[in-house]
Amino acid sequence: MIAESGRSVADLGEWGLIAALAARMPPGPFAELGIGDDSAVVAAPSGSVVAAVDLLLEGRHFLLSWSSGFDVGVKAAARSMADIAAMGAVPTALLVAFAAPGTLSAQWAAELATGLASEAGRAGAGVVGGDTARAESVLLSVTALGDLSGRRPVRRAGARPGDVVAVAGPLGHSAAGHALLAAGVGSFPALVAAHLRPAPGYEAGPEAAVLGATAMIDVSDGLVADLGHVARASGAWIDIDSSALVPGDTLAEAAAAVSAAASQPSRTERGLSPASLALRWALTGGEDHSLAAAFPPSAALPARWRVIGRVREEAAGGRVTVDGSPYQGPGGWEHFR
Amino acid sequence: MIAESGRSVADLGEWGLIAALAARMPPGPFAELGIGDDSAVVAAPSGSVVAAVDLLLEGRHFLLSWSSGFDVGVKAAARSMADIAAMGAVPTALLVAFAAPGTLSAQWAAELATGLASEAGRAGAGVVGGDTARAESVLLSVTALGDLSGRRPVRRAGARPGDVVAVAGPLGHSAAGHALLAAGVGSFPALVAAHLRPAPGYEAGPEAAVLGATAMIDVSDGLVADLGHVARASGAWIDIDSSALVPGDTLAEAAAAVSAAASQPSRTERGLSPASLALRWALTGGEDHSLAAAFPPSAALPARWRVIGRVREEAAGGRVTVDGSPYQGPGGWEHFR
Repeated sequence: MIAESGRSVADLGEWGLIAALAARMPPGPFAELGIGDDSAVVAAPSGSVVAAVDLLLEGRHFLLSWSSGFDVGVKAAARSMADIAAMGAVPTALLVAFAAPGTLSAQWAAELATGLASEAGRAGAGVVGGDTARAESVLLSVTALGDLSGRRPVRRAGARPGDVVAVAGPLGHSAAGHALLAAGVGSFPALVAAHLRPAPGYEAGPEAAVLGATAMIDVSDGLVADLGHVARASGAWIDIDSSALVPGDTLAEAAAAVSAAASQPSRTERGLSPASLALRWALTGGEDHSLAAAFPPSAALPARWRVIGRVREEAAGGRVTVDGSPYQGPGGWEHFR
Repeated sequence: MIAESGRSVADLGEWGLIAALAARMPPGPFAELGIGDDSAVVAAPSGSVVAAVDLLLEGRHFLLSWSSGFDVGVKAAARSMADIAAMGAVPTALLVAFAAPGTLSAQWAAELATGLASEAGRAGAGVVGGDTARAESVLLSVTALGDLSGRRPVRRAGARPGDVVAVAGPLGHSAAGHALLAAGVGSFPALVAAHLRPAPGYEAGPEAAVLGATAMIDVSDGLVADLGHVARASGAWIDIDSSALVPGDTLAEAAAAVSAAASQPSRTERGLSPASLALRWALTGGEDHSLAAAFPPSAALPARWRVIGRVREEAAGGRVTVDGSPYQGPGGWEHFR
């Protein structure tokens, strides 16, 4: 283990940095060859591999003033592995491309590696490879690999009229955490943690596949936006039942605290009651990386799957409504706009 | 196909950009599920998958004033797929994470996609997934996947005393092209193309594995530096025979032209004769992405494998020499220094 205390990434040099990162990131049980060669080799026992990549950019997806290196590592790993789980697959390995200014503290980079390893380990995976470069700001690109254990992938397309739509995991907690941080409200640590270090229940993905899920997605852009992807891919009309989304006490209290604290409420918060704000977080807040899936109405869903809507029998596919009406308000996150 | 003419990436919006990119990047023969879902699914017929990721950053790895979008796409794909070939594997699929300023021309992004698709197609692979984000400058992270067809991976470790060391593909051409561009010499288009659009012979990788290669690497940092990785991983002493690297006429002429044109020669070019400059390109120029491998002395090497050195019988492993002596001069590229 290399001592990072008081040193910068430039002090370590490329090989020192790679050694420091690699020492903190075990390759996991699926790695046949990990960090240190031209490529990694990862078991793909079912004869195909599930793969997804996600970017995490400083200033765009995280702020160094809000997030520790550990936080960023967890978040980067979670984003990519949630995409694997959303296919019904088990995450097996991560590849991490990492660029940073030479002045970045080596300790921060070491914590990043620990965060990546921690979240990968929680999912049963490991870090098998990567790349490093120098850049003006910190950026990560994490590729996650996964295995389907012989099952067919659960796609966005496939939701059928009459299906129930259910969610495993929280909705709006990450958005609440973001709003709390932005408003400078120094409480509700669980919600702030949900924003900084999302903790998707990856095992819900394969579980949904076994339960017969007809379509699935991870909630990264917001429930309305992501169910919109499912609705369009499936040619289905998904109606969300807002009564199933009534926020818990903590979310409601956080909304009240944000509303009280916000001297300059953001565009999306302006004029909303705390209850409406909390509901908006649940409907449009992204980055929870919870799983949303459609199931046949006969599916026996375990408790973690909360039914929050239904695929309508009527035609008029490719859209999402809330209580039967088009959703009024910002639908979720879109880059480049 | 969406018309990009005169529009920016911001004009397209995230979904328009993704659609424009995806329309130009076929998924290839190994894709079981391509762009458009949470993850891709790629065939891994031999039950394991080879995977590598490489960053390509504007200003660091390419310049918008030198490279077209097509060039950058080719280069990004080639870098990652050369890592797959260097394990003895066949590239099967790419995942492309791409970030850019909103002001980037949509046409440039479309050409990038065409370049990625072109090089992937040349290797028999396709583009199966990706991510997009907004950033201050253009950046790509390309993950390549590959298949070993049941062979064991050829690692950096494994070179044995008595092995011959051979290279498939050019050495120093990319460095020459870079020097020509930097010196403003407007000729030698093949060398400039070798820098802007490297064209590794991917099939040499599996060929080397079948021929019994004991160790292999792709020449991305420079021959001396990359054989250094092999020497250290193998605990071997690799001696390069400089007479085997005598540059061809084109490289020698390019070195003469660069020397004549350079009013302010760079640190590495200062005081070198054209012949020495050309040899230095061959020894330390990176980014050719040719393959360097060690073979048992009994291996019958096809013509494309040029023997350029030998693993010495003596102990004193972990180092590379040229004609028996330590190499004097910059050994190759290292980030963060």
